[in-house]
Amino acid sequence: GAPGFRGQKGEKGDAAFAQHSAFSVGLTERPPAPNVPIRFSKIFYNEQGHYDTSTGKFLCNIAGTYYFAYHLTVYLQDVKVSLYKNGKAMIFTYDQFQNNNVDQASGSVLLHLSSGDEVWLQVHGNGDNNGLYADNINDSTFMGFLLYPDTDGY
Amino acid sequence: GAPGFRGQKGEKGDAAFAQHSAFSVGLTERPPAPNVPIRFSKIFYNEQGHYDTSTGKFLCNIAGTYYFAYHLTVYLQDVKVSLYKNGKAMIFTYDQFQNNNVDQASGSVLLHLSSGDEVWLQVHGNGDNNGLYADNINDSTFMGFLLYPDTDGY
Amino acid sequence: GAPGFRGQKGEKGDAAFAQHSAFSVGLTERPPAPNVPIRFSKIFYNEQGHYDTSTGKFLCNIAGTYYFAYHLTVYLQDVKVSLYKNGKAMIFTYDQFQNNNVDQASGSVLLHLSSGDEVWLQVHGNGDNNGLYADNINDSTFMGFLLYPDTDGY
Ligand SMILES: [Ca+2]
Ligand SMILES: [Ca+2]
Ligand SMILES: [Ca+2]
Repeated sequence: GAPGFRGQKGEKGDAAFAQHSAFSVGLTERPPAPNVPIRFSKIFYNEQGHYDTSTGKFLCNIAGTYYFAYHLTVYLQDVKVSLYKNGKAMIFTYDQFQNNNVDQASGSVLLHLSSGDEVWLQVHGNGDNNGLYADNINDSTFMGFLLYPDTDGY
Repeated sequence: GAPGFRGQKGEKGDAAFAQHSAFSVGLTERPPAPNVPIRFSKIFYNEQGHYDTSTGKFLCNIAGTYYFAYHLTVYLQDVKVSLYKNGKAMIFTYDQFQNNNVDQASGSVLLHLSSGDEVWLQVHGNGDNNGLYADNINDSTFMGFLLYPDTDGY
Repeated sequence: GAPGFRGQKGEKGDAAFAQHSAFSVGLTERPPAPNVPIRFSKIFYNEQGHYDTSTGKFLCNIAGTYYFAYHLTVYLQDVKVSLYKNGKAMIFTYDQFQNNNVDQASGSVLLHLSSGDEVWLQVHGNGDNNGLYADNINDSTFMGFLLYPDTDGY
């Protein structure tokens, strides 16, 4: 007899599937304690809840490439902070304070994170570098977002 | 008879339906007037035309999560600016000027915007904090981009 | 005889795919030479290898809209840098140094790039503006990432 009919066309491929993880927070408690994660408790954005205001740590829930940035008001004392990934200081930002010369210091970095990795900011040294300042009309901020999830690209 | 031929391969999946909104602009008019949006009229990127150089405002056309950043040259006077969302100052950046010590001040934040929301930078106070400077070899800049459209993820 | 069986179903289509290009690097050689690209040789992220640590240049492999940012420690001398796209200085960042007052200077911009375009940072002038500083507990950094590939949106 004749050959059978041609098989069905395959299913459509998967859509690109967007995964979101982002936070943007500001300082309210000051001065921040040295040698522990700085806790930023003013929330500009934390929709997925991956930044924990009680610990000051961002917890990676989606493996991928992340962008982090911070902008610090330098007042009354020098500022030296590190951005930590797990137990390791990845980058350092230092700005000295002089009287009548409030300054701004900032940093940013891209890091690949695995699920469970933690990222935070911490004052470097024993409290002589914690001049990060904030009040109701001055901000010191920290933010991060998932740029490229591992699963979506090549 | 013999079985039919194998069916065709399925279609490629949908691309993440990419929605774009971004601008990157620089100061040319100085000093900026206080208490009104700062107008940045040098264009680095404004492909979608969502930043209006005549008003100084970014108009949200696509609901979602946006990143905004600014970098200001501090010269001749102190600088204090706020990033506004609609009528509300969301973050404040302050940097004092001292003679022979030009400084740089910067800020960034993530904000969720709805269609129709407006975002801009504004000098805080009555003109004593408008030391933002720019000329042909010095820049003060403002930018923003849509990070996560509301419609694409979870 | 009877017709054969229907053929097999076709393969599933390809998933939509994302395109990635990003780098994040830090200064290790100092002071940087003037009038040539600053070479950042500490690698935070360079998975696609589009930043060349031997030349200091980022090479665009995927046409689209890119974000670039830098954060510089200002120490011992003033800093003036330009972000170049091919042969052209796109933005300038200037910060003066005063004794006992280490500062931080930063800049960012969005640029549309075509495949083959190169982007880098360069000290402006003849070596009197190259106070970018870095050591094992101080950083000066440069980064960039593909925000919107040309092919994915509208
Ligand atoms: Ca200052
Ligand atoms: Ca300075
Ligand atoms: Ca300083």
